[in-house]
Amino acid sequence: MRTLLKNCDILATVNGDFRWIQNGFLGIDGSVIDYIGEEKPAAAYDNEKDMAGKLLAPGLINCHGHTPMVLLRGIGSDLPLHEWLFEKMIPVEDRFSAEDIRVGNLLALLEMIASGTTSYSDMYFETQTAVENAVAAGIRANLCRPLQSFDANEKYADNFRVKQSIELFRNYHGTADGRIRIDFAIHAEYTSFPDIVEAYSADCKALGGRMHLHLSETSREHDECIRKYGKTPAKWFSDLGTFDSPTAAAHCVAVSEDDMDIMKSKNVSVIHNPTSNLKLGSGFAPIPKMLDMGINVTLGTDGAASNNNLNMMEEMHLASIMHNGYTHDPILMKPAQILKMATANGARLQGREDVGSLEPGMKADIIAFDLDRPHLIPNFDPLALLTYAAQGSDVCMTMVDGKILYENGEFLTLDEEKVRYEVKAALKRIYG
Amino acid sequence: MRTLLKNCDILATVNGDFRWIQNGFLGIDGSVIDYIGEEKPAAAYDNEKDMAGKLLAPGLINCHGHTPMVLLRGIGSDLPLHEWLFEKMIPVEDRFSAEDIRVGNLLALLEMIASGTTSYSDMYFETQTAVENAVAAGIRANLCRPLQSFDANEKYADNFRVKQSIELFRNYHGTADGRIRIDFAIHAEYTSFPDIVEAYSADCKALGGRMHLHLSETSREHDECIRKYGKTPAKWFSDLGTFDSPTAAAHCVAVSEDDMDIMKSKNVSVIHNPTSNLKLGSGFAPIPKMLDMGINVTLGTDGAASNNNLNMMEEMHLASIMHNGYTHDPILMKPAQILKMATANGARLQGREDVGSLEPGMKADIIAFDLDRPHLIPNFDPLALLTYAAQGSDVCMTMVDGKILYENGEFLTLDEEKVRYEVKAALKRIYG
Repeated sequence: MRTLLKNCDILATVNGDFRWIQNGFLGIDGSVIDYIGEEKPAAAYDNEKDMAGKLLAPGLINCHGHTPMVLLRGIGSDLPLHEWLFEKMIPVEDRFSAEDIRVGNLLALLEMIASGTTSYSDMYFETQTAVENAVAAGIRANLCRPLQSFDANEKYADNFRVKQSIELFRNYHGTADGRIRIDFAIHAEYTSFPDIVEAYSADCKALGGRMHLHLSETSREHDECIRKYGKTPAKWFSDLGTFDSPTAAAHCVAVSEDDMDIMKSKNVSVIHNPTSNLKLGSGFAPIPKMLDMGINVTLGTDGAASNNNLNMMEEMHLASIMHNGYTHDPILMKPAQILKMATANGARLQGREDVGSLEPGMKADIIAFDLDRPHLIPNFDPLALLTYAAQGSDVCMTMVDGKILYENGEFLTLDEEKVRYEVKAALKRIYG
Repeated sequence: MRTLLKNCDILATVNGDFRWIQNGFLGIDGSVIDYIGEEKPAAAYDNEKDMAGKLLAPGLINCHGHTPMVLLRGIGSDLPLHEWLFEKMIPVEDRFSAEDIRVGNLLALLEMIASGTTSYSDMYFETQTAVENAVAAGIRANLCRPLQSFDANEKYADNFRVKQSIELFRNYHGTADGRIRIDFAIHAEYTSFPDIVEAYSADCKALGGRMHLHLSETSREHDECIRKYGKTPAKWFSDLGTFDSPTAAAHCVAVSEDDMDIMKSKNVSVIHNPTSNLKLGSGFAPIPKMLDMGINVTLGTDGAASNNNLNMMEEMHLASIMHNGYTHDPILMKPAQILKMATANGARLQGREDVGSLEPGMKADIIAFDLDRPHLIPNFDPLALLTYAAQGSDVCMTMVDGKILYENGEFLTLDEEKVRYEVKAALKRIYG
């Protein structure tokens, strides 16, 4: 089946840079883009879909989250951090059943798909439910079940989280035409011990996996690691061999210059979570410096408990302006850089070579923006438009692998009403 | 005509604080709220409007903008500030005709009304066109034509901007049932001279007007004023009598402790413009300190050239998290405080005693949010929901003076298609 999207603007990638094609054509053969241009292609297509007034862009890649935490959205938002975490978040989360987690993930998928996310990386448990949901939804997902260990004497072979993680990898990695990838994951330095991290990192390397972890989210975490081990979390992970697999490090707010050198030399990808870092008072990750160093910087929403939504357009907007604010440099962050962070850089982090840009030969992971909205007029610069003016709700079509998942408010792969119904039941189970 | 909005959640104000009424009723008699409660009122209403699944909140008040600058949206966004301003913004803006300005303002009204703004304060020229548009749209507006003077020898009586400003005040202040207010305005210290500011401020006071101005938006502006006059902009205005009228001061990023004392003692209201201050690299206005001092802090979008949209929900979101970021205090800014800044505090700045909260006796300036969207589920705390999770596009109804201006994507007072058509023509005139 070949489909031609016609009469639309396209943010194509040519030689690594965005090119704005106006009134153009994008051809899809099955799941793959086979044409982009200003001229109508000579080849015949089975379907032609008129996309006049729309802008096509690569699907957004949300590189860090904990999707089922949407069920915690807005709880205890006025409480101090300690009370919020220990009196609200953790006791409620402890009550989550596998079914609650399945349903929470589905609610998150609705939200992400409707706001233009075509691929996401997620760290949570009962991960098999997220695999099933992603397959049903048709979205791409890098899923993981993170290692945690709360007993220094625990043996590697006895850690049930490790077992689950490796079993997931063996069962699901690369399934659904490669849309499902299973990552290895270590929750964080402060929720693990060196021996177990070292053994798990060795297994990750031996099995050819990728690693996902939290790194120096706060100064407190960073400084306590130095007190405990005499080294920073980045050095600690590096010394334990964790970074010998391709690694995605979330937050990196409190990293040192030496940490950044390590991350650069080990090809660690960084996930910037602007809303979460500001809302929780974590601070400003040194993103401009990392970009200067050539570190692969991506974007994530984090969980809804600390955001409180999963809207990548909001993260793009924040990332584009917050660093200007404290550096007093109005052109520090460029719209093209921001969109790359949200697309191509995310694909690289996820270990996906066939998504992240609109080019012939790439998978058809495409989102369309409805330009016919008052706040998107005029359109002199679609990169500036997407970064500074557009909203997640301006996404009018979300396509993955050439298949439309969402269009004009309708979900085509998920049953929205059923999800709402199941969410209500889950909330009743959890909160009574 | 009496209308009852029924079966909806309501963010009512009781004794100055928000109260969440669930499954409640809000009665309107003409332009005024006459009932709010959980029980159906005994009195009969001519109409009953089912608002199940919706949350009613007070309309948002955008306290600072330059609406016609939507026609400059996205131009030159990668250029350094000086080139952006002098090579792009100013030359293009110089080409604006009165008709262009009228049409630009209309486009801005569509955007603001659709994202929940029911009243706005605007500083621009050809102000009579904004008066006519606001009357046609049914929105509230505090409009002004700012004083500027580029010749130190110019006589007060010869300044055509002053003439226009005072003529506007005489002709339109308090018209359209009070929806239109005309403010006095001084663009900024650096675009004026002391004599003319002193004379104009005296006229403002004599005529019972309110003042709108830019104040210490950047350190450069602040420091240059000190070099020139030996005092800060706030002290300069205060000494010239400007603050003897109720004054709205936009930005206030670089104000000193003494400036804040002056502003507090003179009851100056502050307009916080989060996006603009971050995007332009101006910095972080000391908003938490001002709130602690009891200064009336409000929110604004600034013009679209430095934002690039007019979406008050985005400003609320940013104001709620950006100050947490650098203070490392996750509960510094409270959702209730943020919503007050966007509503009741804005009403106080505008000199309006009958809007800014949902209470019997207040004008029916009401917006409704559609809660039935994935990113607004669950709803445990509607204040947190509006501040952290909701988007401007979640507004499904905008009402001013009891009249619906916008509902479910349709504009009921403005002809959206005609505006689009006129905007296209204006863009062609301006850009060729």
